[in-house]
Amino acid sequence: MKFTAQQIATQLKGTVEGDPSAAVGELAKIEEAQPGSLTFLANHKYAPFIYKTKASVVIINKDFVLEQSVESTLIRVKDAYSAFTDLLDFYQKATQKRVGIAPSSFVDDSVQMGTDCYVGTQAVIEQQVVLGNGVQIYPQVFVGENVSIGDDCILYPGCQILAGTQIGKGCIIHSGTVIGSDGFGFAPQEDGSNRKIPQTGNVILEDGVEVGANSTIDRATLGSTILRKGVKLDNQIQIAHNVEVGAHTVIAAQSGIAGSTKIGKHCVIGGQVGIGGHLTIGDYVKMQGQSGVTSNIADQAKIQGTPAFDYTRYAKSYVHFRNLPKLIKKLDKND
Amino acid sequence: MKFTAQQIATQLKGTVEGDPSAAVGELAKIEEAQPGSLTFLANHKYAPFIYKTKASVVIINKDFVLEQSVESTLIRVKDAYSAFTDLLDFYQKATQKRVGIAPSSFVDDSVQMGTDCYVGTQAVIEQQVVLGNGVQIYPQVFVGENVSIGDDCILYPGCQILAGTQIGKGCIIHSGTVIGSDGFGFAPQEDGSNRKIPQTGNVILEDGVEVGANSTIDRATLGSTILRKGVKLDNQIQIAHNVEVGAHTVIAAQSGIAGSTKIGKHCVIGGQVGIGGHLTIGDYVKMQGQSGVTSNIADQAKIQGTPAFDYTRYAKSYVHFRNLPKLIKKLDKND
Amino acid sequence: MKFTAQQIATQLKGTVEGDPSAAVGELAKIEEAQPGSLTFLANHKYAPFIYKTKASVVIINKDFVLEQSVESTLIRVKDAYSAFTDLLDFYQKATQKRVGIAPSSFVDDSVQMGTDCYVGTQAVIEQQVVLGNGVQIYPQVFVGENVSIGDDCILYPGCQILAGTQIGKGCIIHSGTVIGSDGFGFAPQEDGSNRKIPQTGNVILEDGVEVGANSTIDRATLGSTILRKGVKLDNQIQIAHNVEVGAHTVIAAQSGIAGSTKIGKHCVIGGQVGIGGHLTIGDYVKMQGQSGVTSNIADQAKIQGTPAFDYTRYAKSYVHFRNLPKLIKKLDKND
Repeated sequence: MKFTAQQIATQLKGTVEGDPSAAVGELAKIEEAQPGSLTFLANHKYAPFIYKTKASVVIINKDFVLEQSVESTLIRVKDAYSAFTDLLDFYQKATQKRVGIAPSSFVDDSVQMGTDCYVGTQAVIEQQVVLGNGVQIYPQVFVGENVSIGDDCILYPGCQILAGTQIGKGCIIHSGTVIGSDGFGFAPQEDGSNRKIPQTGNVILEDGVEVGANSTIDRATLGSTILRKGVKLDNQIQIAHNVEVGAHTVIAAQSGIAGSTKIGKHCVIGGQVGIGGHLTIGDYVKMQGQSGVTSNIADQAKIQGTPAFDYTRYAKSYVHFRNLPKLIKKLDKND
Repeated sequence: MKFTAQQIATQLKGTVEGDPSAAVGELAKIEEAQPGSLTFLANHKYAPFIYKTKASVVIINKDFVLEQSVESTLIRVKDAYSAFTDLLDFYQKATQKRVGIAPSSFVDDSVQMGTDCYVGTQAVIEQQVVLGNGVQIYPQVFVGENVSIGDDCILYPGCQILAGTQIGKGCIIHSGTVIGSDGFGFAPQEDGSNRKIPQTGNVILEDGVEVGANSTIDRATLGSTILRKGVKLDNQIQIAHNVEVGAHTVIAAQSGIAGSTKIGKHCVIGGQVGIGGHLTIGDYVKMQGQSGVTSNIADQAKIQGTPAFDYTRYAKSYVHFRNLPKLIKKLDKND
Repeated sequence: MKFTAQQIATQLKGTVEGDPSAAVGELAKIEEAQPGSLTFLANHKYAPFIYKTKASVVIINKDFVLEQSVESTLIRVKDAYSAFTDLLDFYQKATQKRVGIAPSSFVDDSVQMGTDCYVGTQAVIEQQVVLGNGVQIYPQVFVGENVSIGDDCILYPGCQILAGTQIGKGCIIHSGTVIGSDGFGFAPQEDGSNRKIPQTGNVILEDGVEVGANSTIDRATLGSTILRKGVKLDNQIQIAHNVEVGAHTVIAAQSGIAGSTKIGKHCVIGGQVGIGGHLTIGDYVKMQGQSGVTSNIADQAKIQGTPAFDYTRYAKSYVHFRNLPKLIKKLDKND
């Protein structure tokens, strides 16, 4: 499929500078683009590439001032990055949206399904599941009993949504992710063995949640483990039973949150962070990668370390940690 | 399904205080309970809720002394927590136990199967597999050649049990977990490449082992990787080839154990702990979250840090680490 | 299947010492071997076992000098370890190689397949996939649209290879691994929510790459996430969008690399390491387990810590960290 600069400019409400009939069939980074491809310039760091890129068409900010002539046709818009993202979105939805029920899937008779759903090859949907409109369930997905899934959700191949999970609208669950596994709860017995505490709650994902690949979200012991609206989890994240993550909080890969902890909204949590159980983390908290959190954290705090404390203070202490051998030498001399 | 306070009290060998005909149909936490629900009070922290809970029935310790009147019907038992767990257990086994072979599963003709087994939709069970009685294999599980699985095991949707694995009685394997993947063994070659060392051993899980979701347990190079009886692993745990984990050891999420290490029995290992290869860890060892273990550890040690050492000493050193900027300032003044 | 010492010696071009008709049917470690098994002695640490092993046949170095008599039949070769690995390889390929298309797999009509391929039960192979010769796709694997897979690759049960991924020759992908999941990219919006940036690139694995179980490799936003030839990844590793890992680099379990970082060739990266985004790591770099890397790293560096710096200096600083309480006491006395 090819589009002209003029067609794209019309779609983006932008203006063409150069050849309006320049045609593109693929997307590329500005530094790697070949003839026939479309790219964009948003970050100033990449500005020098505008003069040497081979891209046929470049989306660029209205107010960007050229210092030399360029080969590419330009499309001027208010915000190049956002316009390019719009295009990607449009393109992806146009090309990837799937509809229909594959013959070798299993859909229980009791399942209620909205319009325009997709159920892929060898997906399994058990009793009493309710699917909204436009839900896309890729091959080999498992959806357990009594699960509900809102409009326009996408479940990628091989994820498992276990019994009782409730998923809002517009959520995306990536491959290999497990939602609704048992929480890790055991009662120590007198003989030194551990008795399993049945995990009878569920998991709730509000609207617009995205969960990366091979993550795990445990069901509550009683009640619900909850991800509020707009939460974004990266790959290989572990959310334990009865955790609640506040709206629009973003967590990077391989982080884990232990049982019953409440995370505020709009937090930004780095990769490989560990957060202990039964804690309360405020809103707008930032955690550096690999932090280990063992106490409650106030709103807007920025933390690092194991155990984690103020980020700036950690950085200062760490400078001194690096210089400890020098310090000791100096002290030994003074002795 | 509804039950009366009297029915539940009879089951638990407890005594009713209040209306024996009070009926409940669901379980809840004491602070969230609604009319029609059953809850319990075990932890003193929650005692104030007994006077305001909306639960119709509350299980409570025999010796708990009320300081005000309560609305709910009480069931008095010796140990409320343990009684409530009994009920959950009973309820879960009654409602969730599955039996029968789904038509679109694949079970090889050579498979030996006990009585009352369940094999779910699109599960695959290969040659020479032996299943005990009451084994429950959920949809999309893979069981490779020559695997044996003991009585009453539960394999949740989408876990993979690879060839040659031996699983004892009463084990639970959660979704997405892989047992029997190749160990990570390579012989460096003169040209800088790495030659794969074939991994021809297997994995053995003794009775009562539970493995959380998306964990991985590698087969031994030769011999067996072994989890002794009662070991409990949380989600996303990595057990490398030829590791042995002692009886009743409990490991929290996202921890990893490198090749050929032996862990003792009754250890408690926190989340995101890393344990190096070819080490020996004693019995009753406790490891704080995110510890990095690089040496052998004696029985009963409590450790933290990377590399990990005594937990109390780590805590003291860390206080001083936090205060390093102050110390340096003071020293500079004295200079 | 049993083999005599003479048959094995002929295969390995070695010489027999003892009974050439001694027969073996299984492989074992020298310290655990039983009659009827074959083992090897390569590491001097295990030399004492040669005098008491019950193995019927032992492969041993040509130049190993016996200090006592031995019961076992010996096969003398130049390099016992390498010869034993050859045997394992040969045995594994002979016994495990699978061929043929299982009736309950799904292979789209547009798929191009080489000779001697295997597609297991309930595997799904979508449109326009191209498979080389001898590719082995185990049960329940998912291969998305437009994927290409080179000769002699092995895809173990339940891995997911998502649309557009390109895999070279001789690669091995273990169970539960996801290749081609979306990168974690969001543009913060004025209302505090996060807008998904479509991820339209792909993943490229060059020849001889091995990826452990339950790992995740994200597709690039634009362009490709690339693992160069001979890269070996352990289990539960996370590779973010637009990362490039250099040839023959080896990464241990549970490590993660954030977006757009380039790792050099022949690096050795320990377990649970976290590497930040947009960094450049040189060639032949060694990283200790649990390091957190936040800056560019020069060729041949050996690093540790969070943030990571020179390994030897970290070790020295850490000794002083452990002794901080002593130091403070001493300083307090001097005050």
